[in-house]
Amino acid sequence: MPRTLKLTVEYLGAGFAGWQAQASGRRTVQGVLAEAVARVTGERVAVHGAGRTDAGVHALGQVASLVLERSTLAPDALRDALNAVLPADVSVRAVEEAHAGFHARKDAAGKRYRYLILVSPARSPFWEGRAWHRRGPLDLDAMRRAASGLVGTHDFSAFRAAASEARSAVRTVSRLTIDADPEVERLVRVEIEGDGFLTHMVRIIVGTLVEVGRGKMPAERVAEILAGRDRR
Amino acid sequence: MPRTLKLTVEYLGAGFAGWQAQASGRRTVQGVLAEAVARVTGERVAVHGAGRTDAGVHALGQVASLVLERSTLAPDALRDALNAVLPADVSVRAVEEAHAGFHARKDAAGKRYRYLILVSPARSPFWEGRAWHRRGPLDLDAMRRAASGLVGTHDFSAFRAAASEARSAVRTVSRLTIDADPEVERLVRVEIEGDGFLTHMVRIIVGTLVEVGRGKMPAERVAEILAGRDRR
Repeated sequence: MPRTLKLTVEYLGAGFAGWQAQASGRRTVQGVLAEAVARVTGERVAVHGAGRTDAGVHALGQVASLVLERSTLAPDALRDALNAVLPADVSVRAVEEAHAGFHARKDAAGKRYRYLILVSPARSPFWEGRAWHRRGPLDLDAMRRAASGLVGTHDFSAFRAAASEARSAVRTVSRLTIDADPEVERLVRVEIEGDGFLTHMVRIIVGTLVEVGRGKMPAERVAEILAGRDRR
Repeated sequence: MPRTLKLTVEYLGAGFAGWQAQASGRRTVQGVLAEAVARVTGERVAVHGAGRTDAGVHALGQVASLVLERSTLAPDALRDALNAVLPADVSVRAVEEAHAGFHARKDAAGKRYRYLILVSPARSPFWEGRAWHRRGPLDLDAMRRAASGLVGTHDFSAFRAAASEARSAVRTVSRLTIDADPEVERLVRVEIEGDGFLTHMVRIIVGTLVEVGRGKMPAERVAEILAGRDRR
């Protein structure tokens, strides 16, 4: 009796060439997960992710789905068995039974990216590889003003990678917030939620907002760039 | 003209045999800092820490003091120069001029330790080496009741390492709090502040509180153990 399962996966991206398995054989999260599932269950199946994170991108709660044909392992036992064989930079936070036909990407209701910026004259051993280090101060109010112009449904052609292959550049950003992390006062946290993002769209948006925060670009310019629909 | 400087230092403890320089030549934070100061200023001087952290213990704000005889580098320039030559697991968050005679240990007004406990059935790549992983749930209210019996000035003989060499075991714990980290819901944060701590005192206290949190020991037992003054 086939079972559809939902996995919630956490990983440090530094050691991976992104999420998606590659013909080149480079180490990917999808590949490592499929290998662990095969070791634990004896079944070699496809593991579908809600989103394809780029090389180096970490995940706190990437959702994945898979269908097992024969394994009768209970969800919690499968979680523990997978964590026992997975390498240290990936773990499965949760395994849940899902309805037949559930697919992590097709059924995704939205995505949330978090970008951490360490604002400090000194680098930090704790945030090395986990936050973007900027030495200078950032004007968070200006960044928020600029961000407000990006919320909503827009053509994001101006914020996509040149190599982006998506047919339509129309996306809905439902939330874009900029906070100083209350627990770690040196960190600025940018969170962006939406129905989906174009290749490099999040990092281009964050890079642009930081230019505003540094005073290199007026906040109003961001809405103009969006309206121009031109990456250059 | 000699200058006394106060350094605020951050480090990941995993790669160090603790703070204090050792005759054995093992890698220590104090040794690495003194070496960096020598490279930057040409002066080989003692770097005094406010506390001697054990092997593996991280620091977010260890205070250190030193006296330079000749260097005229401004504090911020010294900070940047030190961070340029220090290894990736140590950084100097701040350098400030201090009054003549300032000594990080002798002038310490208090110390604060933070212990992070990851409470989750799954291990976490993000907290590996940075938090103590416990799979089961913890009863935080019971831990708080137990903790309240430790606040104040007491003889902490029952919570010191057998090898502890301090003459008196009397210490003042001014604050002992247990919180679920509001930003990372899987983490429980134990913070303890006091005038100073005996060898392993903090980790023995936290280990005992976790036994209470797991329901292995009644909260009231902790005050009895304290009163017994017996490590066994």
